[in-house]
Amino acid sequence: MIIIGELINASRKAVAAAIEAQDANAIKKLAKDQAEAGADYIDVNAGIFVKKEVEYLRWLVESVQAATDKPCAIDSPAPQAIEASLEIHQGTAMINSISLEKDRYENLLPIVAGTDLKVVALCMSDEGMPESVEDRLKIADKLINGLIQNNVKIENIFVDPLVQPLSVNDKFGMEFINAVEQIKANFAGIHTACGLSNISYGLPERKLLNQTFMVMAIAKGLDGAIVNPLDQKMMACITAATALAGEDEFCQEYITAFRENRLS
Amino acid sequence: MIIIGELINASRKAVAAAIEAQDANAIKKLAKDQAEAGADYIDVNAGIFVKKEVEYLRWLVESVQAATDKPCAIDSPAPQAIEASLEIHQGTAMINSISLEKDRYENLLPIVAGTDLKVVALCMSDEGMPESVEDRLKIADKLINGLIQNNVKIENIFVDPLVQPLSVNDKFGMEFINAVEQIKANFAGIHTACGLSNISYGLPERKLLNQTFMVMAIAKGLDGAIVNPLDQKMMACITAATALAGEDEFCQEYITAFRENRLS
Repeated sequence: MIIIGELINASRKAVAAAIEAQDANAIKKLAKDQAEAGADYIDVNAGIFVKKEVEYLRWLVESVQAATDKPCAIDSPAPQAIEASLEIHQGTAMINSISLEKDRYENLLPIVAGTDLKVVALCMSDEGMPESVEDRLKIADKLINGLIQNNVKIENIFVDPLVQPLSVNDKFGMEFINAVEQIKANFAGIHTACGLSNISYGLPERKLLNQTFMVMAIAKGLDGAIVNPLDQKMMACITAATALAGEDEFCQEYITAFRENRLS
Repeated sequence: MIIIGELINASRKAVAAAIEAQDANAIKKLAKDQAEAGADYIDVNAGIFVKKEVEYLRWLVESVQAATDKPCAIDSPAPQAIEASLEIHQGTAMINSISLEKDRYENLLPIVAGTDLKVVALCMSDEGMPESVEDRLKIADKLINGLIQNNVKIENIFVDPLVQPLSVNDKFGMEFINAVEQIKANFAGIHTACGLSNISYGLPERKLLNQTFMVMAIAKGLDGAIVNPLDQKMMACITAATALAGEDEFCQEYITAFRENRLS
């Protein structure tokens, strides 16, 4: 399971304040805490600072990598901001995310083409948000083929089938996880990854729904997650589900997590 | 989701003591509590009392049905004990369980043949315990066809694919839930049901594993569970997973459970 730590996002007030104050220590702490809690990538997002995104995103990458050796997931649709960040990024970054929306696709494809960058491919097009398994497969198919034709290796692609709220349609949970299953079945070597918290929008006990949905998605083959790694209960669910999915040889990581008191 | 309450089982010391003392009130309380917590069937098992099973099982059915209008899951391989219990059972009972083991199959088939009884069909044969999806499908196929040829309706059959411990083989979780998926896909109208706690045998934090595995099985189509309905955390997981699986119209049961403080 590939964990993308989501906390360094300027849409969170404390992070926005740290960015404006150029408080590198606050960012470093968030990076280090997430890495220690199991993050494989540290997401960085400065999207609310439209005019200063280039400068701030690059500064976030710099701050994160001063604190941990984990690569970043560079979370922006803006090619200049991504390129400025990649100039100084150590190791192989992830780009979060390309989609089938015309502008986004045309802006980001040249950045990832022919590289070893990891790339999140979001199942979104100019025709709007996908609802059914078929909607998602149609977009995923175009995205994956477009990326492969541009010399991106299939194992570097993380398809995000896009979670929609259960409160809007009580079939939206299954449409999403069945899309995960189909994408994994149709494209050998592909990864899937997503943020899941949209599923519980408008419903009570959101944490229970988010944890439960994560486990259901892992049962269907989800192998990447954009989450808060400091949410110990969520991470315990992921560790247990990964073991139960047969992706943790001899349950070693599960037993280690137990010994380190990370399951309770 | 069909919930079979597992608590009235003589392998539990308090239940064995209540049976020997013929303490009907203790049994009635266990029946009532489980029904109120959401059990659709109340399992009754007096298997440890080999010589008195006929008398005791019948007494359990009588006691349960004096306290609740829920039907019983009559949990025995002994035809005389089952028949004595069925004589006095009100409503449509479930028989737990037939299997492909020769004696058990030949003893129980005449009891369910041509009736409207529900029947749990355990994927076990004289060749031993199934390990792979294929092992389970082979046994399920024979059991289902045998029952249907004996005029048992497919919708009255609950296949139990038989959970094996993850500590024995780290693929046993997926072999089980993939069997659930295949059985549901191959036999339209069939149900699946099982006890899940074997999955965590020999591993720490068993409750976490049991809850997580239940959710994964529901994602793959499990629609019946033999559980302790008084385990509120497990029931909350089942309620959330059922909603996320699109089996709870407008999330009504989920929202009701929240209002009744059953999700926390």
